[in-house]
Amino acid sequence: VQFDEATALLVGDSLQSLAFQLVAERTIAHSAALQLEMVRMLALAAGSRGMAGGQAIDLDSVGKSLTQTELEFMHMHKTGALIRAAVLLGAHCGDGVEAEYLDAINHYAKCVGLAFQVVDDILDVEASTATLGKTAGKDAENNKPTYVSILGLSDARNLAQELHQNALSALTGFGDKARRLVQLADFIVRRQS
Amino acid sequence: VQFDEATALLVGDSLQSLAFQLVAERTIAHSAALQLEMVRMLALAAGSRGMAGGQAIDLDSVGKSLTQTELEFMHMHKTGALIRAAVLLGAHCGDGVEAEYLDAINHYAKCVGLAFQVVDDILDVEASTATLGKTAGKDAENNKPTYVSILGLSDARNLAQELHQNALSALTGFGDKARRLVQLADFIVRRQS
Repeated sequence: VQFDEATALLVGDSLQSLAFQLVAERTIAHSAALQLEMVRMLALAAGSRGMAGGQAIDLDSVGKSLTQTELEFMHMHKTGALIRAAVLLGAHCGDGVEAEYLDAINHYAKCVGLAFQVVDDILDVEASTATLGKTAGKDAENNKPTYVSILGLSDARNLAQELHQNALSALTGFGDKARRLVQLADFIVRRQS
Repeated sequence: VQFDEATALLVGDSLQSLAFQLVAERTIAHSAALQLEMVRMLALAAGSRGMAGGQAIDLDSVGKSLTQTELEFMHMHKTGALIRAAVLLGAHCGDGVEAEYLDAINHYAKCVGLAFQVVDDILDVEASTATLGKTAGKDAENNKPTYVSILGLSDARNLAQELHQNALSALTGFGDKARRLVQLADFIVRRQS
């Protein structure tokens, strides 16, 4: 908004390259092989089987009616894949995370990613443009399928709570070590903008 | 052109992620550490200090008069960095390339990258739209500084020949092993589209 679309696109391209650069150039995991695996995770999450693919589905969905399953499929790719990658990449920086813990973290990230989107849809209906920090009511105006348009406001709120609880349950085995992840889940569900 | 701008952008994003994925997921170099270095090279060439930065300079240059040095600086980033990375990444896949050879390959790639751009500027003036495969005469119409607008057609042609010769000279130490790189340089300078 402040500059222009071409500049915004170039900044996005630059930041995406910077993400790969950072994963590759510092010693952030305990082997180069594991860091290569992290590069691969980020690439998959950003590309046609992740964010870019989800965005393509989103473009294709405008004006269509989707089932809740189809909507979830779209969001799992569009925003979910990169949120999951962000959480899992963090976990891979630790000293050898065991497979069962990675599963738990993966489940947490999946729930948090979807909760983010459900809350986004709720805020688009409930919040004012001033609070939201972007134009409210845009989804309905653009005839976009959302959790609110499919489930109604009340059930969308219940779903957000359920995903929040599932995210927190996935973390119980970690005790206080997962404090930051609990805070992140709380923030995502309670945010007003 | 065939689909729409949003789809084209998403395909570009997907292909960029795919490039990182491919460099990271196959065993293409003789150590994971070297492959990480290759990821870093690709990220730097694509990002704000490479292609994206060069494109930003290009956007900023429309309607301005640049010196030949400024024009070269822009092209070294906008297209040169990624061409250089492509050539150097190939060299890194080999069985341990020595530093002096990497310098020679780097010099080759730099000359070929610039030659590509000089020829691009010449073709924009000389070729018909039908031969070129894109609209001819666009640079002058958009008031963009080019090698032809700065040097004139004759000196631009001389510069392309000179860069071509320098590129080939850089390869002399490699003998027949560099056959493909010689062909690539020849193709870039002789192409008509």
